Amino acid sequence: MVVNSSRKLINLDQHDDYLDVDDKPKEECGVVGIYGDPEASRLCYLALHALQHRGQEGAGMVTVENKVVKSVTGIGLVSDVFNESKLDQLPGDMAIGHVRYSTAAGSSSMLKNVQPFVTSSKFGSFGVAHNGNFVNYQLLRAELEGKGSIFSTTSDTEVVLHLIAKSKARIFALRALEACEKLQGAYSLVFVTEDGKLVAVRDPFGFRPLVMGRRKNGAIVFASETCALDLVEATYEREVHPGEMVLVDDTSKEPQSMYLLKPHPPEPKSCIFEHIYFAQPNSIVFGKSVYESRHAFGEILATESPVEGCDVVIAVPDSGVVAALGYAAKAGVPYQQGLIRSHYVGRKFIEPFQKIRDFGVKLKLSPVRAVLEGKKVVVVDDSIVRGTTSSKIVRMLKEAGAKEVHMRIASPPIIASCYYGIDTPSTEELISNRMKVEEIRKFIRADSLAFLPTDSFRKLLGSDHTNFCYACFSGKYPLYPSVAMEESIDDTMKLTVAAN
Amino acid sequence: MVVNSSRKLINLDQHDDYLDVDDKPKEECGVVGIYGDPEASRLCYLALHALQHRGQEGAGMVTVENKVVKSVTGIGLVSDVFNESKLDQLPGDMAIGHVRYSTAAGSSSMLKNVQPFVTSSKFGSFGVAHNGNFVNYQLLRAELEGKGSIFSTTSDTEVVLHLIAKSKARIFALRALEACEKLQGAYSLVFVTEDGKLVAVRDPFGFRPLVMGRRKNGAIVFASETCALDLVEATYEREVHPGEMVLVDDTSKEPQSMYLLKPHPPEPKSCIFEHIYFAQPNSIVFGKSVYESRHAFGEILATESPVEGCDVVIAVPDSGVVAALGYAAKAGVPYQQGLIRSHYVGRKFIEPFQKIRDFGVKLKLSPVRAVLEGKKVVVVDDSIVRGTTSSKIVRMLKEAGAKEVHMRIASPPIIASCYYGIDTPSTEELISNRMKVEEIRKFIRADSLAFLPTDSFRKLLGSDHTNFCYACFSGKYPLYPSVAMEESIDDTMKLTVAAN
Amino acid sequence: MVVNSSRKLINLDQHDDYLDVDDKPKEECGVVGIYGDPEASRLCYLALHALQHRGQEGAGMVTVENKVVKSVTGIGLVSDVFNESKLDQLPGDMAIGHVRYSTAAGSSSMLKNVQPFVTSSKFGSFGVAHNGNFVNYQLLRAELEGKGSIFSTTSDTEVVLHLIAKSKARIFALRALEACEKLQGAYSLVFVTEDGKLVAVRDPFGFRPLVMGRRKNGAIVFASETCALDLVEATYEREVHPGEMVLVDDTSKEPQSMYLLKPHPPEPKSCIFEHIYFAQPNSIVFGKSVYESRHAFGEILATESPVEGCDVVIAVPDSGVVAALGYAAKAGVPYQQGLIRSHYVGRKFIEPFQKIRDFGVKLKLSPVRAVLEGKKVVVVDDSIVRGTTSSKIVRMLKEAGAKEVHMRIASPPIIASCYYGIDTPSTEELISNRMKVEEIRKFIRADSLAFLPTDSFRKLLGSDHTNFCYACFSGKYPLYPSVAMEESIDDTMKLTVAAN
Amino acid sequence: MVVNSSRKLINLDQHDDYLDVDDKPKEECGVVGIYGDPEASRLCYLALHALQHRGQEGAGMVTVENKVVKSVTGIGLVSDVFNESKLDQLPGDMAIGHVRYSTAAGSSSMLKNVQPFVTSSKFGSFGVAHNGNFVNYQLLRAELEGKGSIFSTTSDTEVVLHLIAKSKARIFALRALEACEKLQGAYSLVFVTEDGKLVAVRDPFGFRPLVMGRRKNGAIVFASETCALDLVEATYEREVHPGEMVLVDDTSKEPQSMYLLKPHPPEPKSCIFEHIYFAQPNSIVFGKSVYESRHAFGEILATESPVEGCDVVIAVPDSGVVAALGYAAKAGVPYQQGLIRSHYVGRKFIEPFQKIRDFGVKLKLSPVRAVLEGKKVVVVDDSIVRGTTSSKIVRMLKEAGAKEVHMRIASPPIIASCYYGIDTPSTEELISNRMKVEEIRKFIRADSLAFLPTDSFRKLLGSDHTNFCYACFSGKYPLYPSVAMEESIDDTMKLTVAAN
Repeated sequence: MVVNSSRKLINLDQHDDYLDVDDKPKEECGVVGIYGDPEASRLCYLALHALQHRGQEGAGMVTVENKVVKSVTGIGLVSDVFNESKLDQLPGDMAIGHVRYSTAAGSSSMLKNVQPFVTSSKFGSFGVAHNGNFVNYQLLRAELEGKGSIFSTTSDTEVVLHLIAKSKARIFALRALEACEKLQGAYSLVFVTEDGKLVAVRDPFGFRPLVMGRRKNGAIVFASETCALDLVEATYEREVHPGEMVLVDDTSKEPQSMYLLKPHPPEPKSCIFEHIYFAQPNSIVFGKSVYESRHAFGEILATESPVEGCDVVIAVPDSGVVAALGYAAKAGVPYQQGLIRSHYVGRKFIEPFQKIRDFGVKLKLSPVRAVLEGKKVVVVDDSIVRGTTSSKIVRMLKEAGAKEVHMRIASPPIIASCYYGIDTPSTEELISNRMKVEEIRKFIRADSLAFLPTDSFRKLLGSDHTNFCYACFSGKYPLYPSVAMEESIDDTMKLTVAAN
Repeated sequence: MVVNSSRKLINLDQHDDYLDVDDKPKEECGVVGIYGDPEASRLCYLALHALQHRGQEGAGMVTVENKVVKSVTGIGLVSDVFNESKLDQLPGDMAIGHVRYSTAAGSSSMLKNVQPFVTSSKFGSFGVAHNGNFVNYQLLRAELEGKGSIFSTTSDTEVVLHLIAKSKARIFALRALEACEKLQGAYSLVFVTEDGKLVAVRDPFGFRPLVMGRRKNGAIVFASETCALDLVEATYEREVHPGEMVLVDDTSKEPQSMYLLKPHPPEPKSCIFEHIYFAQPNSIVFGKSVYESRHAFGEILATESPVEGCDVVIAVPDSGVVAALGYAAKAGVPYQQGLIRSHYVGRKFIEPFQKIRDFGVKLKLSPVRAVLEGKKVVVVDDSIVRGTTSSKIVRMLKEAGAKEVHMRIASPPIIASCYYGIDTPSTEELISNRMKVEEIRKFIRADSLAFLPTDSFRKLLGSDHTNFCYACFSGKYPLYPSVAMEESIDDTMKLTVAAN
Repeated sequence: MVVNSSRKLINLDQHDDYLDVDDKPKEECGVVGIYGDPEASRLCYLALHALQHRGQEGAGMVTVENKVVKSVTGIGLVSDVFNESKLDQLPGDMAIGHVRYSTAAGSSSMLKNVQPFVTSSKFGSFGVAHNGNFVNYQLLRAELEGKGSIFSTTSDTEVVLHLIAKSKARIFALRALEACEKLQGAYSLVFVTEDGKLVAVRDPFGFRPLVMGRRKNGAIVFASETCALDLVEATYEREVHPGEMVLVDDTSKEPQSMYLLKPHPPEPKSCIFEHIYFAQPNSIVFGKSVYESRHAFGEILATESPVEGCDVVIAVPDSGVVAALGYAAKAGVPYQQGLIRSHYVGRKFIEPFQKIRDFGVKLKLSPVRAVLEGKKVVVVDDSIVRGTTSSKIVRMLKEAGAKEVHMRIASPPIIASCYYGIDTPSTEELISNRMKVEEIRKFIRADSLAFLPTDSFRKLLGSDHTNFCYACFSGKYPLYPSVAMEESIDDTMKLTVAAN
Repeated sequence: MVVNSSRKLINLDQHDDYLDVDDKPKEECGVVGIYGDPEASRLCYLALHALQHRGQEGAGMVTVENKVVKSVTGIGLVSDVFNESKLDQLPGDMAIGHVRYSTAAGSSSMLKNVQPFVTSSKFGSFGVAHNGNFVNYQLLRAELEGKGSIFSTTSDTEVVLHLIAKSKARIFALRALEACEKLQGAYSLVFVTEDGKLVAVRDPFGFRPLVMGRRKNGAIVFASETCALDLVEATYEREVHPGEMVLVDDTSKEPQSMYLLKPHPPEPKSCIFEHIYFAQPNSIVFGKSVYESRHAFGEILATESPVEGCDVVIAVPDSGVVAALGYAAKAGVPYQQGLIRSHYVGRKFIEPFQKIRDFGVKLKLSPVRAVLEGKKVVVVDDSIVRGTTSSKIVRMLKEAGAKEVHMRIASPPIIASCYYGIDTPSTEELISNRMKVEEIRKFIRADSLAFLPTDSFRKLLGSDHTNFCYACFSGKYPLYPSVAMEESIDDTMKLTVAAN
C-alpha cells in the first residue's frame, strides 16, 4: 500500500539480500472487519493472526464504542503488537484490523504508515484498513494538494480519507462510495465510523480477495481469506463482489449492498497469484479452494512435463508443498520431505553471518540426504521471480547427493511487475523477462525445468477463466498506472509496458 | 499546545497526585530553530537540552538537506529521544526542534502529538514547532473540517498546517503570514521548509518568548530563551518582536522581517509568569534578566512584608531560590538551604509508594533540621496555585523544628486560569480564587503569609509595565477564548470570565 | 537441566495451557563447541540456529581469546540474543554455545540459569554448556554445601563447576574427568578454558547425542546434532562415544580421547526419543538417519495397523510428517496436507484469547476441508503424552468433514517420566499410564488408534537395539534418581518406579 | 565494591570524559535494612531513593517471607529498577537493599555485579548488601580458590558469602562474625537470611557510615545515612558502632549487639569525605550534622583565606552550596546563584555532542551573567581532584563577565587515592599530588586559590578529631592494601604509599 514508485526503489537497494532468501513476490496486507460481537477486538486479533502470512511487519486495530474510536498499531507480528492489556484498551462490539508487509526498518516514520488509519473530519472520526494499491494515487494526491490538502503519510491509502472528507454526501456510506468511484486500482477496504457503521468495499476488478462470514451470535465478519473466518468460528457466506460495497449498522437486520458505477462497472479480474502463492491452502479464495488449485497445478505439471524414471518428488517448502503432492499423486512417485524449512529465520537473523559468506538459502532450507542421495529428484516450487534462489536450491540438492534435479514450477513464467497490491521486483529483474526457459534452466543448473502452461488456467477454471488477472504472466494489464507512476518506472519497464 | 478543553479534564482527573507534588503551572513547550550551520542537528540537540525545563515529556527535531526533510520525535527527555545514531539521521545545515510538556502516558496516540509536525502539501514538505495556544482553534478546525479537511492529531498546532496548505500565496513566507493572520492566541512558531527556508514568528501580543542569536560562523539561532543561545555559543541579538515574522534563507545575507497586520497590529502582552517561574534564571526574557526580576521580587517582599526578628531565610527550591536570595539580601538575614530537593523524582517514581500513604512533597523536598531547629523561618516560594503543597511544606518545616514559619510568595495571588500556553488548573481549583490571603494562611498553617503586591510590577518595570500580560493575577484577558472553547469551561469559570 | 523436582512442579501448575497446545515432551537444550576457526563466534551462532528446535527460550555463547573469556547470554531465540555487535564482542577462534528450553518467565533469576556458565577458579576461568540431567545432583549439592560451597543458580549444571574446581588434578582435562566420574545421569558437556582448551564429554550411557565434525580449514566442531555441522559446512566424523572425553588444544594436531571409568564403564543407552521426536529429520543421530527411522516407523505402522479402505494419510505437523509419509508409501494411499501449522504461535500469543474460550490447538493447527471432507482419514502423530491435544485434533478433523479418523502413533505408549534430560509430565499425567489403548481411543474419540509396537525397535535397529534407552516406554530405568530426587516424586510415581 | 585494581583501570580509560564533567570522587554504594514492617519492600524502596546520591547505576532488593528469599536487581536508578509490580514480587516484613555506583556499561556481566547478592548454602539462602572495599580481597579469594571455591562475580563482596558458607559455627550471626573477622578494609554490611534474621555490621575502623532507627510500629531500619530514616519516618537512634554487629530476629524484643575482636578491636577512623562531599546535607553522619560541618568549613575558609573587597560569593552547585553559604555568612558578603546546574545531564547525554567540541562542564553548569558581570567573585567548591573541571569553571565565570575569580575549596588538597570504598583516580592523576597550590592556581587561572587547612578538622572536631580517616589528604593509611592489590598499583603510587 506504500506507493509503488518508492517501493520499487527499496526492493532494488535495501532488501536484495533478504529477498534473495525467498525470491517470492510479497503480499501487501490482510484486512479484517468485525461487527456485532462483544469480543470484537479479541476476534479481530485472532483473525489477524490467521492472516499473518499476508503481512508480518506491522499490525493494527481500531474499535468503536459509544462514539469513541480507539486505535492500537505497532511494528512486528500480531502477537508483538497486541497483548491482554492492549486488547483491553480496545472495547466495543465492532473492530477493523490490518496486517502489513512493509519494506522499511522500525523508524518513527514507519509507524505512521501502519494501518488502520484513523482520522477526524467534520462528520466525525473514522478508520480504514486497505489491501491493494491505487494506480491513480499520484494524480489524486496532486489534485488534493492543489486544493490545499496536506498529507501526513507516504501511503496511498491516505487519499481515501481525504476523498471521503471532501464528499458532500450526507451519510458515510455515500461519501465512501463517492470516494471509491474516484479510485483506480486494486483495493479491498474496510471502514469503521464513530457512529457505529462498518463498511467493506472491493474495487470493480476485484483484484484482491475479501470474504464475508457470520458467527452463531449473528456477528458479521469480513476478512481477506476464509482461514480467518474459520479461526473465529464464523461461517463463510460469500465474497464481497467486485465493485460491491457492503454496509453493516444497527438500522437493518442484514448487511446492505451497493455497487460502484464508476470509474466503470464491475468486471472481475481476480489475482491468480493468490491461488498460486499468497493465500493459505486451507482458504477459499474467489470461491475456490486454494488447496485444490495448487494440487491441480501439480497434477497438470506431472501430465505436461513428466520426468521419466524419477525416484522422488519433493517440494520447496512451504509454498510448493501442495503442488508437489499433486505432482507426486499424478505421477505415482513417492513424495518426500527433501528440504526442511526453518521457522526461526527472520529478517534480523541474517545480518551477523554475512561476514562469513553468502549463506543465502541455506539458513532457511536444509536438504535431507537420506531422501536425496543417489536419486533422480523432481522438485516443485510455486514460482520463480529472479531465479537466484532456484539456482541455490539446485546446488544444495546436488551437494546433498541428488543424481538429477528436475525443477517444476507450479505457475507460468513471471514476465511483468504487478501494480495491484503485490510487491514484485521491477520487470527488469524478472528472470523470465530476460531469459527463455532453456536459458533459465542453464542458469539454475537444473537437469530439466518446466513451468505451468498458461492455458492450464483455462482448463482448470473453465468459464471462470476470464474473471482472473494474469498480468504478471502476460504483461496485459487490466488497468494502467497513472502518468505520475509511470515516470518512476525505469526505461526497460516502460518499453515492456508499451509492448503490451 | 494540546487543546485546552481536554487538558483541563486531564488535570483534574489523572494527574492530581503528581501535580500535588509540585503545585506549579506547567509551561507547555520550548522551540528552537537553527539556520546555516553544518552541525545543525547537534546544535539543536544542545539548545533543546538547555530548554529542557520547558517540557520534559517529549522532544523532536526536523532537519532539511537537499530538499529532503527528516524527522525524529519521541517520548521522554531530549537525551532519551536522541542519541548519536539518531542525530546522524538528521543531516543538513538547518533544523527546528521542540520540547513538550504533556499530560498523557506513553500511548501511540501520544506520539502523534509530539512536535515538530511535518506535513506534505502541494508546494512541498515543511515542519513546524509551536509554543503557545490558539484560542480560536475550535472555530478554525470546524471551518476547515467543513471544507473537507481531515485532522490526524488532537493538537491545536495542526490547524496551522492546514491554513498554510490552503493559502493561495506563491511563496512560503506569505503563506505562513496569511495563515498566522487567521490565528488568535499565543504562539511562538518556527518553520522549516523542504526548499530550505527557516521562518520564526510570534503572535501580535507576543505572549510567549522567542529570541534570535548568531554564532561566530554566521549561523542564525532562534530559541525560546537565551540560555539556549548560550549553550550553542550564539550571541543574543534581539527578541523576535510581537507580531513579527523573521525569514532566513539563502537569498539574502540577513534575516528578513515582516509584520502581521491581522487580526490586529502588534500590541505587546508578554507573559509575566516567564519571569516569575518558567524561564531559567540565567536567561534574558523579553529583554530583561530573569535573575534580576526574581531577586527584585524578593527584595520587594522583604520591604513590603518584613518579618520582625526572623533568624533565617530559606527557599522552596529550585524556583524560589533567587527571590529568597533577594529577600535575604534586603532583609539582612542569612539565607540557608533549609529544604533540599531531590533530582531523582520523576513521574514514574511516585506510583509504588502510594500504597503506604500520601508522601506527597516529602519525596521531592527534605528539610534540614540543622538549619531549622528552633528558628523563626522565612520561606520564599515563587507562587501558590492550589495550595496543597504549601501546607505540606509548612508542616514539614515545623516538624523539622522551625519555631515559626513565615511564607512569602514572589508573585501576586493567581486567580484566573491561563489560555495562552500555560497549563494552570481550572479557576475553580485556584486557592486564591476561593480564599482571601488570611484564609489561605490558616489553610496552610503558616504564621504569616504575604504575596507580592500587584503594583510591584509597575514599580519594577516602569514604562514597560503595560507590555505584559497579568491575566492570571487579574482575570483581565487580552483575548477571549472562542465560543467552542468556552463551552468546555465549567460554570464557575464562565462567571469569572464574564465578571472581567 | 533445571533440577528435576522443581521442573515437575512447574509443568503441573504453570504451563498446562501452553503444553496443551503441543502435548509433547520438551527437549532441554542443545550444545555447540568450535575450535580453531577465526570466525568461531559466527559459526557458533549458525550452529545454535541449526539447533534452535532443541531450546527456544534462552541462548548463550562463550569465547576465549588471549586468555580472556567473554560471554553473552540472553532470553529468547538465538536471533533475539545475538546481533552483529554482540558477536563482535565475542572474539577468538574457539567458542561454546547453548540453546535452552526453560520453564520460567523472563525474571532476573531466570537469566542466571541461561548457559553457558562461566566461573573463575584457582586455575583460571572456564565455561560449560550442558545438555542432560544429573540424577545425583541433590546428593552432590548437599555434599558440596556441607563442605562450605555456595550455589548461585538453581541449575544442576552448577555442581560440575564446583567438582572441577575442587579437583586436585593438575590439568583441566583431568579435573573435568575426575568431576564427571562423580556425576550420574545424562549429559553431553562442552567446556572451554581460559588457556585455550576445548573439552567435550558424554556420559557413560550416552543418553544425549553429541557429534564431532571438521571444517575444511581443520576447525573442529562439536554439536548435539549433525544438522548443525551441515550449516557450518563441517563434515561429520563421528559421535563422541558414550563415556568419552575429547580434548582439543594446540598441543596436538588431532583431538585426544580419554574414557571415564567411573561410576561405571561405558554402556550405551541412547535416547530413542531423539529419533522419534526431538532431532531434526535431516540429522544423523547415534549414527542413524532420523528421517529413515521415522519413515520406517510409519511403514511399520502401516503394516501392523492398516486401515482398510482409507482415502488419505495426513500428519500432525511438523513432527508427524515423515512417519506419515512412510505410512502413506507403505499403504499406497495418497499423503495430503490435511493440517496446516502456523509458525507464528509463540507462548505470549496465547494469553489474550483465553477470555473468549479454550482455542487450544486451533491456533496452531488448521484443518484443510478440501483434503478431509467425506474422507476416511489416517492421521499420524509421533507420540501421545497427556492425550489432550489428540482429542482436539480428532474433533477438529471431524468438524472439517472427515468421515472417519484413524490415529496412528509413531512410537509406543509413554508410561514413565524421563530423568535423563527430557521434560515429560509426571508419570501420573501420562495418559498411557492411566488408560489402555482402547480407553485412550474412546477418550480421544478416534475411530481407531494404534501405537508403534515396542518390538519394532528390535526389528528396526537389529543388534543396535540394546544400545538404546526405552525407559519412557518400559519404566525400566538404566539409572535411578538419587534419594533426594525421589522425595520430590509423587506417590504414584514411586510405585511405578518400585514396580520396575 | 568492584575490585580496586580493575576500577583504577576503568577510570583512566573509559570514563575520563564523563568524570571530567564532575571531577569528583565517586561514592560506591548505599545500603538499607528493614526488619519488622509489613511494608518492608516499599519502605526499602523509599530508603534507597533517599540514598540515590550514593549510587545511580544499579539498585536491588532482597526480601524474605516464609523462608522464601526473593530478589530484584537491575541497572539504573531506583525508579528504573522497581515499579509497583516488582515491589509486589517482594513480600515479607524484612528487606535489605543496595544502590550502586559502577563503572561499566549495561552488559550482562554488569548485572551479575548488582547487589544485594543472594546465595544458597548448606544452612539455607541468604542475601548481602555491601558498602566499602575489602583490602585483603585478593588474598582471601586466592586462598578460597586454592581450596576449590569458584567465583561467579568480579566483586569483592563475593568473598563474604564464601567465608560465611565455610564457617563451622552453628548460627548465622556467629558465621557472619567469623567471616568478618577475616576481612580487612572498609565495610558496612547488611544481611538477611532465609530463616528471618537481619544482621548489620560495620568494620572495626568504621570507615563507612551505618545508622539505626526505629519506626513507630517498632520496625528497625538500618541505612547508610539518616536521610533514609527520615523518609521512611524512622527515628534515628544511633550509629552501628565501628566493629559492631547488630542482629535482629524474633527471639528478642531488642536488637542484639556483638563486637568483632579480629583482626583488631574497634578503632574508629570514619571517612571525613562523607562530611565534605558524599552525604546529603540533611543527614547526620558519624553523629554530626553534615550541613553544620560544611557550613563551618566555609566559615573557616572565610576567616583563613579572605578575599578583600569581593562582591559576591557563589558556589559550584550542588555540593559546594553549604560551604559557600558559610563563607558568605562569615565574610558578610552576599551569596548568589552564579552557576546553575542542569539536572538533566546523565552519562548517555554526553555522547552526541562530542563531535562538535569539548563542551565539558558547560552542559552541567550555566553561569548567570546578571550575578557575575563586573564582579569580584569568590567561588566555593567542595574539593579538587584532577583540576580539569576547576579550570573550566574559572574560564566560564570570566567569560560571563567576572572581573576576578577567587576559588576556595572546602577541603584540604587530595594527594592520595582511597582504598576504603571511594573511587578516586590514581594518585598520579591527583592534581594536588603533582602541583603546589600556587601551581594549581596558575593551571586553573584563578586570581587566587585556597584550600581548607588540614588542622581545621582538629579545631572543628575537637577530641573527635582522631576518630576520622584523612588518608586522602595525608597519604597516611590506617590499613594497607594487600600485596596482590599493590601489584595492580602503578609505580608512582607505590612510591607515594611507601613515602608515608
